[in-house]
Amino acid sequence: MSYTLYIGNKNYSSWSMRPWIVMQHFAIPFEEKWIHFDNFDENSKFKQTVLTFNPFGSVPFLVVDDFVITDSLAICEYLAEQHSALALWPTDIKQRAQARSLTAHMHTGYQKIRQYLPFNIEAQLPEIGKIILRDHLPVKKEIEFLDNLLSRYLKRSQGNYLFGNFTIADAFYAPLCLRLKNYQIQVSDDLLKYIQTLCSTHGITQWIDAALKEHHFVAIDEPYRFSR
Amino acid sequence: MSYTLYIGNKNYSSWSMRPWIVMQHFAIPFEEKWIHFDNFDENSKFKQTVLTFNPFGSVPFLVVDDFVITDSLAICEYLAEQHSALALWPTDIKQRAQARSLTAHMHTGYQKIRQYLPFNIEAQLPEIGKIILRDHLPVKKEIEFLDNLLSRYLKRSQGNYLFGNFTIADAFYAPLCLRLKNYQIQVSDDLLKYIQTLCSTHGITQWIDAALKEHHFVAIDEPYRFSR
Ligand SMILES: N[C@@H](CCC(=O)N[C@@H](CS)C(=O)NCC(=O)O)C(=O)O
Ligand SMILES: N[C@@H](CCC(=O)N[C@@H](CS)C(=O)NCC(=O)O)C(=O)O
Repeated sequence: MSYTLYIGNKNYSSWSMRPWIVMQHFAIPFEEKWIHFDNFDENSKFKQTVLTFNPFGSVPFLVVDDFVITDSLAICEYLAEQHSALALWPTDIKQRAQARSLTAHMHTGYQKIRQYLPFNIEAQLPEIGKIILRDHLPVKKEIEFLDNLLSRYLKRSQGNYLFGNFTIADAFYAPLCLRLKNYQIQVSDDLLKYIQTLCSTHGITQWIDAALKEHHFVAIDEPYRFSR
Repeated sequence: MSYTLYIGNKNYSSWSMRPWIVMQHFAIPFEEKWIHFDNFDENSKFKQTVLTFNPFGSVPFLVVDDFVITDSLAICEYLAEQHSALALWPTDIKQRAQARSLTAHMHTGYQKIRQYLPFNIEAQLPEIGKIILRDHLPVKKEIEFLDNLLSRYLKRSQGNYLFGNFTIADAFYAPLCLRLKNYQIQVSDDLLKYIQTLCSTHGITQWIDAALKEHHFVAIDEPYRFSR
C-alpha cells in the first residue's frame, strides 16, 4: 500500500492539516505533495490541478495505489480501519462513538469561527480577535460553546487529549484551537492547557514548523493583512 | 443493546431521514421518538427538548443504552461497525473508501441546493424549481455536478445503487434526490432511474409514507408555501 497525500499550503489549509497530522502522529508512512493556493476560481491553477485527481476540487486527498479518497474525514476513517492496531479512534466503543460525534460536528459546524477567524498559522492577530468578538455575537457564542464542550471532555479524560491519548478527534479540533491561540481569544484554563498540549504534540509541531517556513502570501485567505 | 432514534418531522428533516432509513433498510431494531420542529430559536420547544440529550442541539441523535451519538454520519459509522455482517458500507475496501468520500462530501456540501430547494417530501413545487434554476446559477451548477457524479458511479455499479447494493452512501444522497424529484428538476436518464429506485427502496418508502401522513406545517421550512 503506498500513500500520497495531496495538501494545500500548510499555513492556510486547515483541512489538509487534519489527516497529515494523524499520519505523522501515528507514523504512517506517506509521501506528501503540495498544490499551492492561487485562488479557488474555476480556472485557477489550483482547481485545474486538483480536478485532474478529485472531482470535488478540494484538498486534501489521499492517493492509495490506484484509487483516491477525497475528504479529510473519509481519509481518516480509511486509515483507522486499515491501521486498526494504532487506535486512531478511541478503543472503547462508547468513547469512539462520542469521538465520531464530535468529529462529525466539526466537519459540518463552527461556521462562524471559520468565516471570521480564518486559519492562518503564521499570523498573530490579537486586535482582530478583540474586534470580531466585540462585533459578532455568533462568533462569541460558538467559541463559548466550543470551550464548554471541550472542557467537559477534557475534565473526564484519562489523559491530556479529548479521549485519553491523541485521536482523530484531536486532529479535527486542533485547527480550531490554533485559531483561538493566534487571535488570542480568552478561554478557560482547561482549554488553554489543551491548546498548549496540542502545540507540543508530535505531528502538530512538524506541521506548524513547516507552515512558518512557507513564504507565500495568499490574498483570498488574508482578509486582515497586506503581507506576511 | 437498545437503540432509540430521536428524529424531527419526517416531512422536513433530511438529516433524521438518513440513519432512519439505514436502520429500517437493514432491519436493525430501534424505537423512534419525535421531537417536532416549532423553530430553532434558543428557547423554542424543539431546542429545549433536544438540549437535554444533545449539546449540539440537533436531530437526529441515537441513544444507545447509556450514551448518545449526536450526528447522522457518526450514527451510521457506529452502526456499520456494530453490525458489520450487514454490510452498511460496501464490502470492497476501495469502494468503501469511495462511498465514505461521497458521503463525507454530502455531509458538508451541496449548500446551494440545500438552501434554495429545502427538503419537503409532501410539496410538489415544479414552478419553484424552474425559477430557482433560472435565477440562481450556483444551484444549477451544483445540480449538474451532482448529476455527473452520481451518473458516473451508477454506470460503473454492479447493481441499482451507487455501489451495487444499498449502502449508507445511498441513504445520504436520497434526500438530495427527493428534492430533485419534488422540484421536478430535469436530470440525466441514469439519475432519473436511480431516483425511481430510491423511491421504491425498503426504508425510504416507509419514511415517505409516514411523512405524507404528518399534518404539521412548519413555517421556517416553508419559504414557498402558506399551508400544506
Ligand atoms: N469536506 C472537505 C473540505 C475540504 C476543503 O474545503 N478544502 C479547501 C482547502 S482547506 C479547498 O480545497 N477549497 C477549495 C474550494 O473551496 O473550492 C474535507 O473535509 O476534506
Ligand atoms: N451534522 C448534523 C446536522 C443535523 C441537523 O442540522 N439537523 C437539523 C434538522 S434536519 C437540526 O436539528 N437543526 C437545528 C438547528 O439548526 O438549530 C447531522 O448530520 O446529524
